[in-house]
Amino acid sequence: MPKVSERGTIMPASPIRRLAPLAAKAREEGVKVYHLNIGQPDVPTPQCGLDALKNIDRKVLEYSPSAGLDSLRRKLKEYYSKYRIDVDVDDIIVTSGGSEAVLFAFMACLDPGDEIIVPEPAYANYMAFAISAGAKIVTIPSSIDEGFALPNVEEFEKLITPRTKGILICNPNNPTGYLYTMKEMLRIRDLVKKHDLFLFSDEVYREFCYTGAPYISAFHLPDIEEQVVLIDSVSKRYNECGIRVGALITKHPELKKNIMKFCQARLSPPLLGQIVAEASIDTPAEYMLETYNEYVERRKFLIDRLNKIPGCYSPIPMGAFYTVVRLPVDDADKFCRWCLEEFRYEGQTIFMAPATGFYTTPGMGRDEVRLAYVLNTEELSRAIEVLDHALREYPGRTVNR
Amino acid sequence: MPKVSERGTIMPASPIRRLAPLAAKAREEGVKVYHLNIGQPDVPTPQCGLDALKNIDRKVLEYSPSAGLDSLRRKLKEYYSKYRIDVDVDDIIVTSGGSEAVLFAFMACLDPGDEIIVPEPAYANYMAFAISAGAKIVTIPSSIDEGFALPNVEEFEKLITPRTKGILICNPNNPTGYLYTMKEMLRIRDLVKKHDLFLFSDEVYREFCYTGAPYISAFHLPDIEEQVVLIDSVSKRYNECGIRVGALITKHPELKKNIMKFCQARLSPPLLGQIVAEASIDTPAEYMLETYNEYVERRKFLIDRLNKIPGCYSPIPMGAFYTVVRLPVDDADKFCRWCLEEFRYEGQTIFMAPATGFYTTPGMGRDEVRLAYVLNTEELSRAIEVLDHALREYPGRTVNR
Repeated sequence: MPKVSERGTIMPASPIRRLAPLAAKAREEGVKVYHLNIGQPDVPTPQCGLDALKNIDRKVLEYSPSAGLDSLRRKLKEYYSKYRIDVDVDDIIVTSGGSEAVLFAFMACLDPGDEIIVPEPAYANYMAFAISAGAKIVTIPSSIDEGFALPNVEEFEKLITPRTKGILICNPNNPTGYLYTMKEMLRIRDLVKKHDLFLFSDEVYREFCYTGAPYISAFHLPDIEEQVVLIDSVSKRYNECGIRVGALITKHPELKKNIMKFCQARLSPPLLGQIVAEASIDTPAEYMLETYNEYVERRKFLIDRLNKIPGCYSPIPMGAFYTVVRLPVDDADKFCRWCLEEFRYEGQTIFMAPATGFYTTPGMGRDEVRLAYVLNTEELSRAIEVLDHALREYPGRTVNR
Repeated sequence: MPKVSERGTIMPASPIRRLAPLAAKAREEGVKVYHLNIGQPDVPTPQCGLDALKNIDRKVLEYSPSAGLDSLRRKLKEYYSKYRIDVDVDDIIVTSGGSEAVLFAFMACLDPGDEIIVPEPAYANYMAFAISAGAKIVTIPSSIDEGFALPNVEEFEKLITPRTKGILICNPNNPTGYLYTMKEMLRIRDLVKKHDLFLFSDEVYREFCYTGAPYISAFHLPDIEEQVVLIDSVSKRYNECGIRVGALITKHPELKKNIMKFCQARLSPPLLGQIVAEASIDTPAEYMLETYNEYVERRKFLIDRLNKIPGCYSPIPMGAFYTVVRLPVDDADKFCRWCLEEFRYEGQTIFMAPATGFYTTPGMGRDEVRLAYVLNTEELSRAIEVLDHALREYPGRTVNR
């Protein structure tokens, strides 16, 4: 039998994926499993998006242009301008979800052996896309005790080599919920400028900033606009993760050409999703506000409750809908597995994402999990109650009560 | 400004893409342009697919499983069984179009420097996906004078090196319309078996075989079933290219695991397209037959007319909806460009794909073009009339009339 590629073999399977079959098994056994593990919100897709879907009256579901429907790109340009992101239609390339935007960004910017620096904990799939491109992700740890603030510039500079091609940030951050301050963004900007790097900026959670602190886009930073590669997606803001519509935005002339070759090879992004996405940009402000308020409430509720559990600690996330929590356990991987396999409280259990999947530095995040607050407060309340009981009973607990 | 990747830079922009802006310009000037250049059929999408779209009544357009909707995979299994392709649901991985299936196949099977052998002319995007994976496509020329039959086994064996990991075929073939015979398929099978290679088999045109000769799937070949990587797509058979639903089918246990990691990294294939694809599998036999008969008629019509033009020669394609034609011109790239830029016949012109884009051997295909018979016979008739006049007037013609 011929051998498979090494790149696929070394690609780490995320801990969530390894646990998913256990959650499925528990559900099959009639256990109520609270899914705090993934960013699949329970909020309905906006009606205008669903209506657009109903109203499609094409006779041939044909290829869309490789860069995406012109009408969608024009609409996105307007949308970005509301966030003072001043880009041309021509700078916006529609992709099959934010995922494809990351893949194409890496493919078109990085050669095998090239390096990018990423603060960790970080979205696990960046690693998979980097491996696909043969590039290396060099992580710089941020710490839960400092609320996952950006590490010092000196720490970044220590990691810069002749192969460093870029810095990647996710802002607001998945998994930490951290929102970079203007001061931090300017430090990143200076680094990027000084070392002539790409700044990959994943900003898919921009609608979800809770503290009154401003959202700073990479495109707001002075004098590096051709170095910015913005990653975007409609998935989270309109709760339509399944339609697979994202975007890559760049003003770098050569990069645009390079990216388009990858786009043309895969022919086109999904037509139907693009129609829904385009209509969703007109989602009424009330829907956006209601969703926003819902997350504000969930966030407050979740963090308050978590921090009351002895030995638990979560910084207050400023954005997105995740938080990384320290738990009083020996090993969060084991704990998450145990919850799914063995622990039941009144026929219920919880599915959490072990934080080790978001770190590459060995040993980091061993007592941390990521929780997504994508359930309503009533469900969240029960989930935390289950977590509280699990932490009392878990054999590897480090705090006895 | 940071430098873009070499891989994107060396990726050839297809000649079709280079010509597309010229066609757009001609259309803007009011010229009627006959598009014989791409595989975007004019046939309507089946009503059952369009109805399924209308009937979607989900409130949240959420992620589908990374391997695709279970219901779609089960339906595909049934569909394949009608072609005596005996696979399990578990062997079928749904992708974002056949394009993603090729990309993931290469990513999961090939490491940088690995080689695959592909008979040329070949679908140009294989090259782009190979470059994405850092792999090398080694082409083995087939000739228009032999009707693009499979080259001799000895020719393949000459190209096999320690880095050879697979052979790729497209059957029925894009761009030639060639359908491999049982004898040819068995020769490929023996090679694959002898050298322990993967057999990548792109069979997206299986519905379109016109000569009564049987369609032989790679999965019909004895004793190599774990070496076969089947590439499939619903795009062509149900005329729904825009929904981006394809599949990769493999029985190789390690490969399945490897592929799934790439699938999980990109989260999920498009939900809406999957719903349409699933319904489309129930397309009534009458629709399929009608579409088939339409292509049979177009094919006969096109080839008869082409072969009557002095200096033109097209073998009779046995499948798909393309043919590669030899034209009496000095340089088909120039000729195609000239047609779009300069030539007009009664306010009309034609857009053809220069065949050089389907070859990697320098000089091959210089007087050939690929024509897609995706227009009705009336339009085809006018298009050929325009071609005939263009060939009379083109300054670089090699046959004077």
